[in-house]
Amino acid sequence: MTSPIEAAIQAALADIQARGKPDNVYLVACGGSFSQMNVAKYAMEREAKTIAADAYNSAEFIARNSARLSRSSVVILCSKSGDTPETVAAAQYAKERGAYTIGLTIKGDSPLAQAVDARVDYDATPDAGSADIPSAIVLRIVFGILAKFEGNGKLNDLLRGLAAVPSVLAAAQTKHREATLAWAQLRKREPVIYTMASGANFGVAYLWACCILQEMQWVHSQPIHSGEYFHGPFEITDSDVPFVVLKGLGNCRSMDQRALNFAGKFSEKVLEIDAQEFEFDGVDEGVREYLTPFVFLPLLRTYAVALSEARGHPLTVRRYMWKMDY
Amino acid sequence: MTSPIEAAIQAALADIQARGKPDNVYLVACGGSFSQMNVAKYAMEREAKTIAADAYNSAEFIARNSARLSRSSVVILCSKSGDTPETVAAAQYAKERGAYTIGLTIKGDSPLAQAVDARVDYDATPDAGSADIPSAIVLRIVFGILAKFEGNGKLNDLLRGLAAVPSVLAAAQTKHREATLAWAQLRKREPVIYTMASGANFGVAYLWACCILQEMQWVHSQPIHSGEYFHGPFEITDSDVPFVVLKGLGNCRSMDQRALNFAGKFSEKVLEIDAQEFEFDGVDEGVREYLTPFVFLPLLRTYAVALSEARGHPLTVRRYMWKMDY
Repeated sequence: MTSPIEAAIQAALADIQARGKPDNVYLVACGGSFSQMNVAKYAMEREAKTIAADAYNSAEFIARNSARLSRSSVVILCSKSGDTPETVAAAQYAKERGAYTIGLTIKGDSPLAQAVDARVDYDATPDAGSADIPSAIVLRIVFGILAKFEGNGKLNDLLRGLAAVPSVLAAAQTKHREATLAWAQLRKREPVIYTMASGANFGVAYLWACCILQEMQWVHSQPIHSGEYFHGPFEITDSDVPFVVLKGLGNCRSMDQRALNFAGKFSEKVLEIDAQEFEFDGVDEGVREYLTPFVFLPLLRTYAVALSEARGHPLTVRRYMWKMDY
Repeated sequence: MTSPIEAAIQAALADIQARGKPDNVYLVACGGSFSQMNVAKYAMEREAKTIAADAYNSAEFIARNSARLSRSSVVILCSKSGDTPETVAAAQYAKERGAYTIGLTIKGDSPLAQAVDARVDYDATPDAGSADIPSAIVLRIVFGILAKFEGNGKLNDLLRGLAAVPSVLAAAQTKHREATLAWAQLRKREPVIYTMASGANFGVAYLWACCILQEMQWVHSQPIHSGEYFHGPFEITDSDVPFVVLKGLGNCRSMDQRALNFAGKFSEKVLEIDAQEFEFDGVDEGVREYLTPFVFLPLLRTYAVALSEARGHPLTVRRYMWKMDY
């Protein structure tokens, strides 16, 4: 049985195959949806031999007006509501430039869904630990493109890995339960919390910093790239400055480890979350690093829920978003 | 008379021409040098019809191990001292993969200078308002590549514009003198200062936030993309949260303006710096947006000097950098 999402992905891939090998893939969205494009960009750069990929905020994508955007481009866009004005405009703009456009939204009748060549309707939230969240769908699309045009054989391993994510996540959440509650109590009055990650997980750090801590908790924050930390930001480290460090797998792990070692030496408030503890047994080594964001993100959501409860500041509270024109 | 820097650029461009059109350009550095790659990436994406470009932290570049890195790649690296270990390693790695490597450093006998195919020795600091700072040199190289392989005709306009930067900067610094001192007094006790920009100027915001405010002043900070602001970070805005907003030229200007309008409505601590005020008379419109970072960066340096004096915290103070192994 092919799921509706898999069927939509396959239909889009068939269209792309009919058009011929794309020169480039543009990943376009805003905020939380933008952050979810990171792992696909990362995977494309690791794996693609002939196809370029980059991720953009939707308004920047239009303003940048890339000379390389053409009929040989695939543009994948995401907006949960499907009515983010910049993302809808980006889809229209990309289509006018001849690109093949794919839109991810939870509403099949939304402006984004209507503007694109192919739509993928999803209903999972980013923290669902599911193969059907936007970042996983985008990853499935780009590995599908790589399978069709470059003979990349990792798609099936990736799909098997994504199928394992819910149980890996459940185990990680159980293992972190006490740490989650303890961290929330310790950090509930912090005015600033920094987060570090790299590679496949930088998008998770971005979402956590910008869309959870800043947006939903009004806590000052910044996603710091683990490798960049040593070239400026590390000077802000002090005994009372809190950090969350996501330690990934693969080649980037040593960057995260180095950042963790330093932060842990000079700050008494470092939370480490290590992907090595995720129980990916049976999942092919070659795709594990691409799967780590799908565990980190919902695991951090449980930290966010605990923090919001300790602070008495529900994750649903906003002062500006959706409340006024901006 | 050809300057030594121009001669070095021309020699590198001749090598690249002899090798044939590159498929992609990788811009690789750490921290402040990394931030200076932003405008070249931006210009490449705006202008290049057939050559991809992206910018990476040096350690991430190696870890990412792009499948597209090849003999058809140009890798431009920068390290002021020439001995940043990650950047030296990145040069060696890129060369082993067959790429043509160009290294920018102030020391011609540094490990970076020794590791690359072509070196460009510079001696200007990033805030010198000169055509010979790293970001300007990289921009000259990529426009040289575009001239040779795609017939892009903007290089001469760019060079004329860069020649005008010192006088544009001097006028801007004079105009901002009182504002600079007033801002430093008003903001000297702020624990957090955010900075927003987009497009050609996002790298300036990054350098200012990570290498000035965090590194040199130990002030919490984050460079926020003007377009992303509305999708998370804007919820942190309050009457007492300070922002610096860089308003650029060209297509990105409307993003910056929108962010400024919102921040200015809800924060009483917004500093606006508007590139429209820069006196680029006589400089071709088609290159002006690429020149704005060369005014913003040294202009912000004068704000940094004033802030450091008001805070009694010299810009030269470090607690970790260069003082220990890390």
